[in-house]
Amino acid sequence: MRLVLCPYIIRPMNAEIISIGTELLLGHIVNTNTAFISQKLAEIGIDVYHQSVVGDNPKRIAESINKAASRSDIIITTGGLGPTVDDVTIETIASLLHKKLILNKTILKDLKDYFKLRRIKVPQESMRQAYIPEGIKWIRNKVGSAPALIADYKGKVIICLPGPPRELNRLVEDDIIPYVKKISGAPWVIRSRTIKIVGGAESQVNGKVKDLLALKPPTTVGIYAKLGEVELKIMTKDKSAVHAARSIARVENKIRARLKDQIFGCDDETIEGSVARLLTGKRMTIAVAESCTGGLVSDRLTDVPGSSKYFIMGLAAYSNDIKVNLLGVSPAAIQKYGAVSKIVAFQMAKGARFLACTDIGIGITGLAGPGGGTRSKPVGLVYIALVSGKKSIVKECRFSGSRKEIKFQASQAVLDLVRRQL
Amino acid sequence: MRLVLCPYIIRPMNAEIISIGTELLLGHIVNTNTAFISQKLAEIGIDVYHQSVVGDNPKRIAESINKAASRSDIIITTGGLGPTVDDVTIETIASLLHKKLILNKTILKDLKDYFKLRRIKVPQESMRQAYIPEGIKWIRNKVGSAPALIADYKGKVIICLPGPPRELNRLVEDDIIPYVKKISGAPWVIRSRTIKIVGGAESQVNGKVKDLLALKPPTTVGIYAKLGEVELKIMTKDKSAVHAARSIARVENKIRARLKDQIFGCDDETIEGSVARLLTGKRMTIAVAESCTGGLVSDRLTDVPGSSKYFIMGLAAYSNDIKVNLLGVSPAAIQKYGAVSKIVAFQMAKGARFLACTDIGIGITGLAGPGGGTRSKPVGLVYIALVSGKKSIVKECRFSGSRKEIKFQASQAVLDLVRRQL
Repeated sequence: MRLVLCPYIIRPMNAEIISIGTELLLGHIVNTNTAFISQKLAEIGIDVYHQSVVGDNPKRIAESINKAASRSDIIITTGGLGPTVDDVTIETIASLLHKKLILNKTILKDLKDYFKLRRIKVPQESMRQAYIPEGIKWIRNKVGSAPALIADYKGKVIICLPGPPRELNRLVEDDIIPYVKKISGAPWVIRSRTIKIVGGAESQVNGKVKDLLALKPPTTVGIYAKLGEVELKIMTKDKSAVHAARSIARVENKIRARLKDQIFGCDDETIEGSVARLLTGKRMTIAVAESCTGGLVSDRLTDVPGSSKYFIMGLAAYSNDIKVNLLGVSPAAIQKYGAVSKIVAFQMAKGARFLACTDIGIGITGLAGPGGGTRSKPVGLVYIALVSGKKSIVKECRFSGSRKEIKFQASQAVLDLVRRQL
Repeated sequence: MRLVLCPYIIRPMNAEIISIGTELLLGHIVNTNTAFISQKLAEIGIDVYHQSVVGDNPKRIAESINKAASRSDIIITTGGLGPTVDDVTIETIASLLHKKLILNKTILKDLKDYFKLRRIKVPQESMRQAYIPEGIKWIRNKVGSAPALIADYKGKVIICLPGPPRELNRLVEDDIIPYVKKISGAPWVIRSRTIKIVGGAESQVNGKVKDLLALKPPTTVGIYAKLGEVELKIMTKDKSAVHAARSIARVENKIRARLKDQIFGCDDETIEGSVARLLTGKRMTIAVAESCTGGLVSDRLTDVPGSSKYFIMGLAAYSNDIKVNLLGVSPAAIQKYGAVSKIVAFQMAKGARFLACTDIGIGITGLAGPGGGTRSKPVGLVYIALVSGKKSIVKECRFSGSRKEIKFQASQAVLDLVRRQL
């Protein structure tokens, strides 16, 4: 494998990604694997100049691999390693390498263990996955049944990965990136940092960091808008890790000075994770009463490992009876102001806190649509409330989008409200 | 343009998609355009055998277009039509066609109108967008500033589209698909139907429909595995819409006969939608008590518009106190069997039904991980229970994956349990 490192190659190595799957050509699924791999490769300084997609067709797969081998150092294929007859990647690789497919006993044992855990006998089709080209390197797939394969081909490296994103992501992060880093011996370090922002539109954030978005390499800033969130990604490339870290910090400080408490976290941090960290740190507990979000806030808070430390109860109080009988919302308030009102949000938060004996109580009521809106209470109107020992806050929010988008934005606003209070 | 329709081409036309943009190679954004275009082309019977991505680099763009022209009838490029200096698609096309870029006055007027509407003077950079290769066909972009371009090249058709999905989608639906349909003269209709299956691994489903997966065009079946779900997609191509519908129905009936009640729906239907339909039809109500899923089941049930008809309450009973005090779970049972046990799941379901006075009560308790597992109760062990007036069911399930994946699979199993009881 070290062949590709021969000393006359002084330029950095590059990689090419070939996604295999007729379902991609038909547009049945969106190709997220390619972006994931490319991003991880960029982080270790490996350039990707080509990405392509071919169907489960041996001739076209072979053509694509040959084309890639003529212009790229590392060829990564995704997909076509499954148990069914239309999965032909392994056969194609074997035929390109002029190698026989032979049964690998370790893979077979893994396969048996994998199905045993699921209490299923190894299906006949899946047995195919234990056959790999003779003498080839393979890597265990910890979350699926198809191992990854690595082979030398015409002086280049071919890496074959399974298509399901959850298996692929795990293999890329745990095994492939460390492996490529080792063989590429890239002389520089790439560092990036994503600053995560809530409570502002992309254009508002854009206006505050316009000069930074225009920065030229080696240090650049990109802006990415998501539902209810904006991300600023700082990237830099340097021969020294210390200098790279310094360049990132310089830009990060500028961003922090301008966006202040709109920033909730960095990199992989989520807003629920940031709330979790703050609650755990202050040894505080929380209970949530949700109407329009229907359990989404509880779901997000319990996505964080260890959430049982601070999350005591979530009540999706969809019917008015539950609001009244369990949370103690006053029927008169519902009668007079409606279930979607400031007072009901407040009484829900108070009721949740009382019922679960927590430090903080949260109440959410609104109209997620698509039906049910009126002129004075349109779809997207949401009231959120927070009650703690010290204070009570009720906020009116207005969102737009589909039912699920409104639910998500409301949950985002509630989590942001909790974060700011802590 | 009619050249490509010369009578000796009797095979159907095919298309190839080239996405242009360094941001795609860096993995900064996921390429959704390619799936969108491919799907729309498939619907009018145009096959796509290749999709590729190149950066904003004239040499590599030209190479990709030449390669595509050697093997495909229609070449669609996306991206690189923007106002900034790194957008080089138009210059590259002009140079391939040996044509000069000239100012198009109609496009210039459109551009001025576009910015006038936004109350901005046309930025100097944007003026570039009014220059197109001499004598080329162009299509107005109704929601952005870059028009689409259409050119003849080596007897093939090149179509250049802007990169922003909102602009691209509009152009594809309104203009490109009708145009391609016209030039391809495709005489057939394409029909598809997706059968959605729960409660079986991909390999198990595969084993039951192996012969159907091997069907050859015009009617084919594809299998797609998702977390906790398997999809079978039937596709057919026919000159008659009636015959196409009949071909689909024939295969669908076979699938239904073999997979029976593992099938929960078709096409865009979700399992929560199918539960909603059944509950509404039977005028039944439901309440959910969740521990490890933390609100996800409630969240999914309330994703369906009109869910207030049947969904009364969801309780994320994370702490044992809440289980005991609100749901009436017996402290002795928790003491003796643990919170993750059959009896606690059953008592939670019973308690939820009693508390909310519903027809059906659901209980879920388990270990979502990553910590907290033991030898006898590993991470992924989940008990689900359903209590109605007529019966009580408790099931033990074992899942693997991340915390979020275990939560999702548990919610899937619960929704499936409810569906089967209805």
